[in-house]
Amino acid sequence: MPSCPLSPLLPRRHSLPSPRLLLLLLYRSLHSSPPALDLSDPTLIVWGSNTGVGKTLVSAGLAASVLSPSSPNPSTFLYLKPVQTGFPHDSDSRFVYRKVSDLFRHRLGGFSAELLASNHALKASVPAARQVLGARSERPEEEGEEASTGLCWYEETRVGTGKSTKGDFKLVCKTLYAWNEAISPHLAVEREGMTVEDSSLREVLGRLLNSSAGGGDGRKEKVWRLIETAGGVLSPGPSGSIQCDLYRPFRLPAVLVGDGHLGGISTTLSAYESLMLRGYDVIAIILADQGLSNEVPLLSYLRHRVPVLVLPPVPEDPLNDLVDWFCESSKTFSSVQELVISTHSKRIQRLHDMPRKAGNILWWPFTQHKLVPEDIVTVIDSRCGENFAVHKVRNDREMIVPQFDACASWWTQGPDFTLQIELARDMGYSAARYGHVMFPENVYEPALHCAELLLEGVGKGWASRAYYSDNGSTAIEIALKMAFRKFLFDNEMHLISGKGIPSERCIELRVLALNGSYHGDTLGAMEAQAPSSYTGFLQQPWYSGRGLFLDPPTIFIHKEIWNLSVPESFQSNQLKPEDMRFRLSDLLFCPSRDSSAIAEIYSAYISNQLLQFSKLSCSTRIGALIIEPVVQAAGGMHMIDPLFQRILVRECQSRRIPVIFDEVFTGFWRLGRESAAELLGCVPDVGCFGKLMTGGIIPLAVTLTTESVFEAFRGDSKLMALLHGHSYSAHAMGCTAAAKAIQWFRDPFTNPNVEFKEKKLKELWEMKLVLQISSLPAVQRVMTLGTVCAVELKAEGSDAGYASLYASFLIQQLREDGLYVRPLGNVIYLMCGPCTSSHFCSQQLKQVYQRLHEFSQHQLRDSQSFQKRDEP
Amino acid sequence: MPSCPLSPLLPRRHSLPSPRLLLLLLYRSLHSSPPALDLSDPTLIVWGSNTGVGKTLVSAGLAASVLSPSSPNPSTFLYLKPVQTGFPHDSDSRFVYRKVSDLFRHRLGGFSAELLASNHALKASVPAARQVLGARSERPEEEGEEASTGLCWYEETRVGTGKSTKGDFKLVCKTLYAWNEAISPHLAVEREGMTVEDSSLREVLGRLLNSSAGGGDGRKEKVWRLIETAGGVLSPGPSGSIQCDLYRPFRLPAVLVGDGHLGGISTTLSAYESLMLRGYDVIAIILADQGLSNEVPLLSYLRHRVPVLVLPPVPEDPLNDLVDWFCESSKTFSSVQELVISTHSKRIQRLHDMPRKAGNILWWPFTQHKLVPEDIVTVIDSRCGENFAVHKVRNDREMIVPQFDACASWWTQGPDFTLQIELARDMGYSAARYGHVMFPENVYEPALHCAELLLEGVGKGWASRAYYSDNGSTAIEIALKMAFRKFLFDNEMHLISGKGIPSERCIELRVLALNGSYHGDTLGAMEAQAPSSYTGFLQQPWYSGRGLFLDPPTIFIHKEIWNLSVPESFQSNQLKPEDMRFRLSDLLFCPSRDSSAIAEIYSAYISNQLLQFSKLSCSTRIGALIIEPVVQAAGGMHMIDPLFQRILVRECQSRRIPVIFDEVFTGFWRLGRESAAELLGCVPDVGCFGKLMTGGIIPLAVTLTTESVFEAFRGDSKLMALLHGHSYSAHAMGCTAAAKAIQWFRDPFTNPNVEFKEKKLKELWEMKLVLQISSLPAVQRVMTLGTVCAVELKAEGSDAGYASLYASFLIQQLREDGLYVRPLGNVIYLMCGPCTSSHFCSQQLKQVYQRLHEFSQHQLRDSQSFQKRDEP
Repeated sequence: MPSCPLSPLLPRRHSLPSPRLLLLLLYRSLHSSPPALDLSDPTLIVWGSNTGVGKTLVSAGLAASVLSPSSPNPSTFLYLKPVQTGFPHDSDSRFVYRKVSDLFRHRLGGFSAELLASNHALKASVPAARQVLGARSERPEEEGEEASTGLCWYEETRVGTGKSTKGDFKLVCKTLYAWNEAISPHLAVEREGMTVEDSSLREVLGRLLNSSAGGGDGRKEKVWRLIETAGGVLSPGPSGSIQCDLYRPFRLPAVLVGDGHLGGISTTLSAYESLMLRGYDVIAIILADQGLSNEVPLLSYLRHRVPVLVLPPVPEDPLNDLVDWFCESSKTFSSVQELVISTHSKRIQRLHDMPRKAGNILWWPFTQHKLVPEDIVTVIDSRCGENFAVHKVRNDREMIVPQFDACASWWTQGPDFTLQIELARDMGYSAARYGHVMFPENVYEPALHCAELLLEGVGKGWASRAYYSDNGSTAIEIALKMAFRKFLFDNEMHLISGKGIPSERCIELRVLALNGSYHGDTLGAMEAQAPSSYTGFLQQPWYSGRGLFLDPPTIFIHKEIWNLSVPESFQSNQLKPEDMRFRLSDLLFCPSRDSSAIAEIYSAYISNQLLQFSKLSCSTRIGALIIEPVVQAAGGMHMIDPLFQRILVRECQSRRIPVIFDEVFTGFWRLGRESAAELLGCVPDVGCFGKLMTGGIIPLAVTLTTESVFEAFRGDSKLMALLHGHSYSAHAMGCTAAAKAIQWFRDPFTNPNVEFKEKKLKELWEMKLVLQISSLPAVQRVMTLGTVCAVELKAEGSDAGYASLYASFLIQQLREDGLYVRPLGNVIYLMCGPCTSSHFCSQQLKQVYQRLHEFSQHQLRDSQSFQKRDEP
Repeated sequence: MPSCPLSPLLPRRHSLPSPRLLLLLLYRSLHSSPPALDLSDPTLIVWGSNTGVGKTLVSAGLAASVLSPSSPNPSTFLYLKPVQTGFPHDSDSRFVYRKVSDLFRHRLGGFSAELLASNHALKASVPAARQVLGARSERPEEEGEEASTGLCWYEETRVGTGKSTKGDFKLVCKTLYAWNEAISPHLAVEREGMTVEDSSLREVLGRLLNSSAGGGDGRKEKVWRLIETAGGVLSPGPSGSIQCDLYRPFRLPAVLVGDGHLGGISTTLSAYESLMLRGYDVIAIILADQGLSNEVPLLSYLRHRVPVLVLPPVPEDPLNDLVDWFCESSKTFSSVQELVISTHSKRIQRLHDMPRKAGNILWWPFTQHKLVPEDIVTVIDSRCGENFAVHKVRNDREMIVPQFDACASWWTQGPDFTLQIELARDMGYSAARYGHVMFPENVYEPALHCAELLLEGVGKGWASRAYYSDNGSTAIEIALKMAFRKFLFDNEMHLISGKGIPSERCIELRVLALNGSYHGDTLGAMEAQAPSSYTGFLQQPWYSGRGLFLDPPTIFIHKEIWNLSVPESFQSNQLKPEDMRFRLSDLLFCPSRDSSAIAEIYSAYISNQLLQFSKLSCSTRIGALIIEPVVQAAGGMHMIDPLFQRILVRECQSRRIPVIFDEVFTGFWRLGRESAAELLGCVPDVGCFGKLMTGGIIPLAVTLTTESVFEAFRGDSKLMALLHGHSYSAHAMGCTAAAKAIQWFRDPFTNPNVEFKEKKLKELWEMKLVLQISSLPAVQRVMTLGTVCAVELKAEGSDAGYASLYASFLIQQLREDGLYVRPLGNVIYLMCGPCTSSHFCSQQLKQVYQRLHEFSQHQLRDSQSFQKRDEP
C-alpha cells in the first residue's frame, strides 16, 4: 500500500501533527518548475464555495452552451476532472459527457451538426477500479503508463446528423484520478491508496491543457478547456495540499459557484476571498436561486468587481433529467460563455499592449530606454515562489511560461511558494488590523516583535537598538549619521558643536571605505562610495566622494582553485604561492589566518594608509568605517578577503572609529549565514539590513546599533535626538512580513536548508558544477557563497564593466531556457532563496553550464577563424 | 414602515444595484467613533464557518464550563446575541439560558452553589413581537427607550441550594434585536421592518459589554462576556453590512466554530481567512466530529497558529436534551475556557510590557528618548479607519479606547474603515499573485495601471512618465537628478560633461528654494532645504545647503481674517492694507491677482534675487526650482501665497530652469484638490508624490516628469540613463494599493466628499469654528485647507519653534479626549482623510476649541497673576 500523507500516525484529537509530517505536508508541493500554459483559447477553472453547490451543473451548462448545434463554428470542449471521489457512482465527467450529449440531441432541431463526445477515466484506485469492473462487462483498455495504478474507463458516442460540412463538435471529458469512497481525496488516498504527488498531478494536467484536446489536427477550431475542482476552494487534494494552492501555478481564470442558501452569502464571499489570497482572478460568481436573493448583497459587497449570475432553482427530484432546467438556464450560460470569452480576449489584448504602453509611460531605473525595444520587454503575469510566469508568443500560441527569477528581483527574494502565500495572508491581516500607524513614541506588536527578532538574530551579541527606515539607502544614511555622532561624542567634539552652527563646520568628516563598494543611490549613501559609473557629474552633480577608499584583496575561483588577489600597493611580494591559493573556501574563513604572514601585511597596509591620510589635513577626520562584509555585490559580485575586512574592523575599533556593516545585500542568509558578520567573525557598531529582511515582498530596512551609539543621542534637548525619519517608519505590514520571514528562514521545520546545529545553509549550488564552470575558456572567474553563484565572462575594453552589453546574447538565450538572468555588465549570476532546494538549483546551474560551454566553443571558433584570417 | 436597506427597488437578477444604494450600503457603517472597550475580563466573539455548525452549542458549553457549581469562585457570564432571526421559535439566548441552567442543576451534586439565570430579549420586530404575545400570556414589561420598536421578553430562574457563602453564579443572556422569519437579518429587516443602524447596534453592544453585567455591584467577581454572531462570518447584519465588518471596531478575540462535515475543511479555512482579512485574532477553532478527522488537515495547514479542538458528534435526534453530549464535551469546553483565559492574560500582560520593551529596544525617529517616559508611550492595539485603538488603564480597568489619528500618522492616512479592509484584501491578492517582481525592462499590471492613473490624475496635462521609488526623500533625490540633467541638457553642458569626470566639476549646481521648506531626510533632499534644526552639524555633518533660499510671503487667519504677510526684503511698502487682508480664502487663489500690484512686486523681487545670485560666480548656476506648492508642512504648516509661487514658477520656466513640485505632502487631496498644482494654476516639469498615494497603507513614491525631461536621458550608452533605483521599485503591493486609493478618493461613489463637477473636496473643517479658534487669545494664527487644520499657539523664545515643548500639556489633554495629536513645536494640527465625514471633523474640532479656550483662560490668568506679582 502506498504511503499515506495523513496516516493514522496522527493522533485524532487536540494535538498537533508531528514536525516530520508537517514538513512532508509543506514540501510536497514545492520546488518543481511550474508548467508552461497555452492560453490561446479560453481556459478556466471552476471552484465551489462548498461541496454540493452545483459546480458540475455549471460545467455542463457552459459546455452545452459552447457546444450548441446552432453555433456556426463547431468547437471542442475539454472537460477535466482531476480528482474524483465516490467513483464510479459519482463521476462528474460522466455526468457532463451524458448531459451535454443529451442536450445536444435535444437542441439539434433542424440543424445539421454532429457531436463526438467521449468520457475517459485515466486512473482509479483499486477499490474504485473493482467497482468499474463490476459495473461494466468489458475490461477497460490499457492506457500505457497512465493505467499503472488502476484501471480505466472509456466511452464515446456520436450525436447528430453526421452530414455537417462545418466539421464536428467535440466534447472530451476526462477524470484523471478516481477513488471509490465519497470522502475528501486526502482521506480516500489514506483508505484506498494511489498516492498522487502534486507535481505529477500538475504535470499530467499541464500536458492535457496544452494538448490540442483529443488529438484533433484541425488547429483552426476553438478549444475550450475547463478544470472542475473537487469540494470547496480550500478542500485538500490527494496529497493533502489545499486545492487552491495545488492549482495555483496555472493561475487559471476562475469561475466560483456560489451558494444560494441561507448562509451562502458568507461561504461565497469567504471562498472568493480565499481565491484572492492566492492571486486568482475570479471572472464570475454563479449561484442557483433559492429564493433568498443572495446575489444582491454579494453584488453590493463586491462593488462591481465581479459579475454575479443567477441560475433558476435546481429541481430536487433525483429522477428529474434536468433538461428543462438546462433550457431555462441557457441564457445565463450564454452570458457566462460571453463573459469568459470577453475576459479572455481582454486579458490577451492587455498582455500584448503592455510592452508598448510600458515603453511609453514608464521610466525604468538603471535602464537606457533607447536600448530596450518593445520585444525584449518581459511581461510578468505573476510569480509563484522562485518563478515568474511570463507572457510569450511562441509559434503563434499565447503562452504563459515559467522563468526562474535568477536575479532574485534585485536580490530581494527569499520566499518559496508556501511562504509567499503565508506572507500574503499575514500582510492582509496586518493591513486590516493596523493599516499604517505612526511610530515615534508609540508601540504596536509588529514593530516590537520584529525588533526582538532582529536583536536575537542578526544583531545577536552586539546590537541593542533597532532604527527602522524604508530601504538600504536610507538605512545607510541613518547609519552614517549615527556613526559620525558617535565619533564626535567619543572625541568630545559634540560639546563644541552644540553651541553654534558655522564654527564646527571646520571639522570635515570622511568615511573609510573600499573601492568597488556600493551603499545605495541617495546622495549621502553615494558619498560613502568610491567614484564609479553611478557617481559621474551627469548622474549626480552633487557627488564628491567623501571617503578614503582602499583597494581590497579579492578572492575568486579560477580553474577549480580559490585564488587570492592582493593589490600591488600592499607590497606583498614576500607572499608565497601557497598563501594565495586554496582548495576549499572554508579555509578562507578560518580564524587561524589571523596569525598568518598575510595578516601582518594587511595590518601594516591599513595603518600606513590611515597615517598618510591623517597627515593630509588636521581638520579632516575619518569618522566611520563602512564595508559590505565578504561580498561586494553591485560592484560585480566580488568576494573580499574576510581576513582583510576583519583586520580593517580591528584597526578602526582600536582607533575609536565606529564601524558600519552594510548587510543590505548580505543579510538574512544571502551568503549562507543569517548575517555575514558571522562569516567575518567580528561585529560592527552599526549594521544596515533590508532586501531579504521581509522575505523580499515589501520594502523595509533597519539600522541596528549598540547601546553606546544610542547613548550619543541622549540629551535634554530634542535637537540632540536623531532627526531622521520617513513617513512609513516601522510600518506594520513590513514589520509583519519581516517577523514572519526571519522566523521562516531560521527554522529547520520551515526551511529544510538550515543546518540546525551549525546555523548555516547547506550547499545550494553544486560545487562540482561550479568548479567545472570555472574551467571553461570563456570564464574569467567564479564566486559562490550561500544563495549566490556568479560568473564573470572574459572580456576586454568596452566589453568589460558596468555598461557592457557583452553578455546580452547569452542572457537572451538563458531567458528562453527559462532563467530570468540580469547581468552586471559581463558578470552573470544566479541567486536563489534561502529555502530553494539544491536539486532545483542544480537544474538551473546545469543549463547555465551548457550555455557557457557553447559560448566558450563559439568564442574559440571566432578567435580561431579570426587568427586564420589574420594569417597572410 | 421603516425604510429598507435592500429594498425591492433592486432588480433581482444580473444587474448591479444603483449607485445610490451602493453608497447607502457603503456609508451606513462609517464615521462614528468606535466604542471604548473594557478588557479587564475575558471577552470573546463566536463566529461560525457557516450556519448550523453549532455556535450556540459552543456558547452554551463554554458558559456551562465557566458556571460550574464545582468552581471555587462564582463568575458572571454575559451572553449576548445581538441579532436573532426565526424568533421566538429560534432563540439562541433562550437555549443558552435553559441549557446552562439545566446543566448547572445536573452538575450540582453535593455542591453548595446557586445560579441566578436570566434571559432577556430587548427589541423585536412587530411580527416577532406578535408571536411572543401569542406564545406567552403575560405582556412583557416595557423597557423604556429600548422597547420602542418592539416588545420584549424577560424570564429568570434560580437553580441550586441558595445557601452558598461564596456568592451567586450569574448567567445573563440577552437578545438585542429579533425578527420572526428564519432568514438573513438584512432580508428580515426588508420584510418585517425595524431598521438597525450599525452605529446604534454597536452603541448598545458597547454599553452592555462595558456594564458590570446585570447590575451586580460586587466588582470582585469575574465577568465573562460572549457575543454570538448570526450565520457565517461574512453573513450580513440587519443593515446589510457584513457582520465581520460590523463588529470589527471591537476586534474581540474570536472563537471560530468550524465544520466537521465533508467540505468543512474548506469552509472553515476560508472563514478563518476572512476573519484574518479583517484583523481579528482567532484564538481557537472548535468543530464537532463527523468521522472525517477534519481537524487533522486544519491543524496541518494552520501550522500551530491556532489550536483546533474537537467535540463529540452532536446527536441528531431533536428530542435529545443534549445533557449527555455536554457532559461528554465538558473536558473540551474546559480546554476552551483555559485557552480563553490564558490568551486573555497573555494579551493583557503583553500590552503592559510593551511600553517598557519599546523604550528598551526601539529607537524612534525624531524622538529624544530621554523625554519619553514609559507612561507616555502609546500602545496601539489596532487601527480602524481614522481611529487608533489604544490600550489604557483607567480606574484599574484595562481599556481599549479609540483615538482619532489627528496627525494622520505623519500625514499619510486617507482610508476610512471600508477602504482599509479593501486595501487589505487587494494587497493580499497582489502579494499572492506577484509577491515582488523586478521592475526594469519588465512590466506587470499594478505598475502599469498605477502609472496610467497617475498620469491621468495628478500628472494630467503635463506629465508623461512615472519613475517609482520608495519614499518622499528618494522621489526628491530622483527629481533633482532629473532637473539638473535637463538643465545641463538645455544649456548644452551635458555634451562637455560626457567626455571625462573631473573637468565638469567646475560647474556647481544649486537649487532655488524657499526658506522653511522641507524635502526629506536623506542628504540630497536636505541639501535642497535651507538651514534648520534638522540640518545642524550634529545632525548631518555633510550638509552644506546648496541653494539660493528666498523668504516667501505667507498667509494665515488671525481674528477671523485671512492675512498676507510679506517679508520686509520685498520692499512692499507701497501696498495698501486691502491687498493684505481677505475675507475668504478663495480670493487668494483667484487668477485675477496675476495683474495686481503685488504680482509686480513679487516678480521684481524674484528677478532681482536671481540677478544678484548670478553676479556672485559664473560657475555656480541655479539648476532647478523646488517648492512645496501652497503649504510648507514640516516647516510649521505655513500657507505660502499661491500668487508668489505661481510667479516664481513662471520666472524660472522663462529662464529654462526646470521646476520641481514637492507634492509628497500636498498630493492626493491633502489640500482639497487631487494635486496642489491645481490650486496654484500652473504645472511643473517634475513632480514628487508619496504619502497619501497608497491611501497611506504602504510606502511608495513616484516622480512624474514631462517627456522633455525624459529625453535628456536618452542616448546610446547606459551611462546616459538615470542610474538610480531601489530594490523594491514599483513593488506590486504598493502599486496595487495606490491604484485602489487613487480611484477610491477620486470617485464620488466611494468618496462622498468629492464635489464631482469642481473636482474638489467639500469643506471638512467647519469654517465658523476655525474662525472662532483664530480669535482665541492663546492663538497666534490658524491655517485650514482641505484635510488640514493647523493652529499656532502664541509663544516666545524657547517656547516657539521645532524643539518647543510648550504644547505638551495641551497635547496630553487632547489625547485623553480621544484625539491623537502630535505637535510641530508650538503648532497643533488636525488632519483627516479625504473621505472623512465633515460631521466627524466638527466633533473633533469642537473638542480642540474647548481645550484651546480653557488654555487661553489659563494663560490669561497666569499672565494676570504674573502682572500682579510684578507690581511693586
